[in-house]
Amino acid sequence: MKTQVGIVGAGPAGLMLSHLLSLNGIDSVVIDNRTRLEIENTVRAGILEADSARLLVDTGVSDRVLRDGHPHEGIDLRFGGESHRVDFRALVGESVWLYPQTDVFVDLANARERDGGDVRFGVSDTSVDINEPAIRFVDSDGVRQEVRCDLLVGADGSRSICRAEVPEALRTHSFREYPFAWFGIITEAPRSAPELIYAHSPRGFALISQRTETHQRMYFQCDPETDPSAWSADRIWEELQARVAGPDGFTLNEGPITEKTVLRFRSFVAEPMRHGNLLLAGDAAHTVPPTGAKGLNLALADVSVLSELIERALLKNDPDALDEYGPRALNRVWKAQHFSYWMTTMLHALPGATDFDVRRQLGELGSVVASEAGSRFLAEGYTGCWPA
Amino acid sequence: MKTQVGIVGAGPAGLMLSHLLSLNGIDSVVIDNRTRLEIENTVRAGILEADSARLLVDTGVSDRVLRDGHPHEGIDLRFGGESHRVDFRALVGESVWLYPQTDVFVDLANARERDGGDVRFGVSDTSVDINEPAIRFVDSDGVRQEVRCDLLVGADGSRSICRAEVPEALRTHSFREYPFAWFGIITEAPRSAPELIYAHSPRGFALISQRTETHQRMYFQCDPETDPSAWSADRIWEELQARVAGPDGFTLNEGPITEKTVLRFRSFVAEPMRHGNLLLAGDAAHTVPPTGAKGLNLALADVSVLSELIERALLKNDPDALDEYGPRALNRVWKAQHFSYWMTTMLHALPGATDFDVRRQLGELGSVVASEAGSRFLAEGYTGCWPA
Repeated sequence: MKTQVGIVGAGPAGLMLSHLLSLNGIDSVVIDNRTRLEIENTVRAGILEADSARLLVDTGVSDRVLRDGHPHEGIDLRFGGESHRVDFRALVGESVWLYPQTDVFVDLANARERDGGDVRFGVSDTSVDINEPAIRFVDSDGVRQEVRCDLLVGADGSRSICRAEVPEALRTHSFREYPFAWFGIITEAPRSAPELIYAHSPRGFALISQRTETHQRMYFQCDPETDPSAWSADRIWEELQARVAGPDGFTLNEGPITEKTVLRFRSFVAEPMRHGNLLLAGDAAHTVPPTGAKGLNLALADVSVLSELIERALLKNDPDALDEYGPRALNRVWKAQHFSYWMTTMLHALPGATDFDVRRQLGELGSVVASEAGSRFLAEGYTGCWPA
Repeated sequence: MKTQVGIVGAGPAGLMLSHLLSLNGIDSVVIDNRTRLEIENTVRAGILEADSARLLVDTGVSDRVLRDGHPHEGIDLRFGGESHRVDFRALVGESVWLYPQTDVFVDLANARERDGGDVRFGVSDTSVDINEPAIRFVDSDGVRQEVRCDLLVGADGSRSICRAEVPEALRTHSFREYPFAWFGIITEAPRSAPELIYAHSPRGFALISQRTETHQRMYFQCDPETDPSAWSADRIWEELQARVAGPDGFTLNEGPITEKTVLRFRSFVAEPMRHGNLLLAGDAAHTVPPTGAKGLNLALADVSVLSELIERALLKNDPDALDEYGPRALNRVWKAQHFSYWMTTMLHALPGATDFDVRRQLGELGSVVASEAGSRFLAEGYTGCWPA
């Protein structure tokens, strides 16, 4: 089999790239070890930057985000038991969209199917050759396949097999571990608030998020070794309520807990993002802590740049086009990494933190919400509207 | 001897308070263990916020800051070998003033002398009684003295004996040590730049500052155990030049080094700032790392609030006036603590930092200078123009 662009990974990055390329008449084949159902059932982030939502709508993937998504015009920063709204629309003229990553995936998978895209789920035994670019795998019918291609894109997530093909001497892996994790639940309950609440408390961080009319997503900072099964619903609610408690009497709407997970996270950047005919995109090249809601958005930003450059490389025979990929993508990646780190360290209880550190965090949060500039700097990061 | 306000410490905080009180007809006595000459010879910070400069001029201390000081309308943030100006005047409509703390002290000491203020330098064996408020000391003529007072103010610096009088069970000391120090020099050379340069480099932080037409002040981050005598002038210049080097070819003007010191620093806040009739101001209550140039300015802000409240307490018999001191002063203190911490951690090489941390710092610096909001948030902190 022969295609122009071989894409490993059929998550949002891989599918969006395949979609964007097809709009320019560039062929691609996308493969993924997971079945479509497995990917659909992976619960992930749910905040789309306005540019990400526009990309879905304007390129004809789907306008479902506009119908089923919820525009969020701000977030609440809650500290010292009081909520302070950061009004994105007033500050930067943009909203974000609450729209689960699963739905983004479904929209993209449907669009690729609709447009006759070649996407192979549930393959196995995948390997790549970066010298004579090719993907080799066993398809879901058990047949061994080889896809030869001009360019190879690794959009295969944080355990990327493509990334491993960059010679060790040429690659830099920058990372930071965090000494805490998130305890995440889904609860069958009405919304507790119209927008996301990022809560700083002496007991640690909590994030109150929404999902649907009937199911909500909430998280609280925990020790990475926490065993979710050891936590009763009562204990979870007690902890969550304590982290948002304040003199304003705010409480969460409780309900049955239908899912409990402990989410460990880290900051990671692999460089280069391009090695010869191999290009890395999304989680294969970088992961961010979830505090800034940047992961999916960065992946879509990567492939948006990449599709433009691949078009120049393959259709306009511009031999230097792909050289631009790393610098352009990484400029955004490092801003997003800083933003995610900032939100994380400003809001979490850091192990070993002294009283000074906690009071300083409160001083920082106070400065940010009191200052139009501080609030706007945060809004630029959250909405992804970074000045060039 | 009897006075209304007994002030321990004749640095800028103590002298300015005594001056402000005298404008309202409130008597005070100020004592200091150091001689006037000792204080004059202590080299300290040299950046005054516009409000600090105005306080000196508008209350009639001196207008020398306007004649001998230099208005600085911005700073340079230098990273990746390039300078990026943060234009305070354009961003927040304020400048800061380069005017050494020593000169502030001289102006204040002269003003107190001119106005007949009671300031006793070079005393010894000082102790305070906070129950029946009094300062006891041996004056510079060897005579034992007691000053009874209505209120006692500890403006006696970071090793404050007054602070120690707050019962241990009632006090909180918040602090953070930093695993590095500053190697500071004075050099006899022309200015290397018109404004301060805050330089991030792979070798660590450097600050290029000015002092006079002929003498300049520069610092570079070093290990706290560094022995300044072990560093030759050649080695110092090599290190400083390396930290500001860049493709723009910028170099420092070198000259004989007339002073070498290693400056260790930490962040510290003592609470409460008021205990009964005892009030703490300036370094006695808080110290900041020098990166934000906030120390002297916070001290002046403290006594500006304090003089207003003492006036209400003593002249208008408002029994609750002094209750406002802690909350009002601490609101500014914690913003300044955060700002100083932010400047410090954004610009210094942190021991144990991974490649991720360094790249993230560069991502942060890039975000700050590219964003009007980010730059303005920094300018608000540097000029002390925090929104209420």
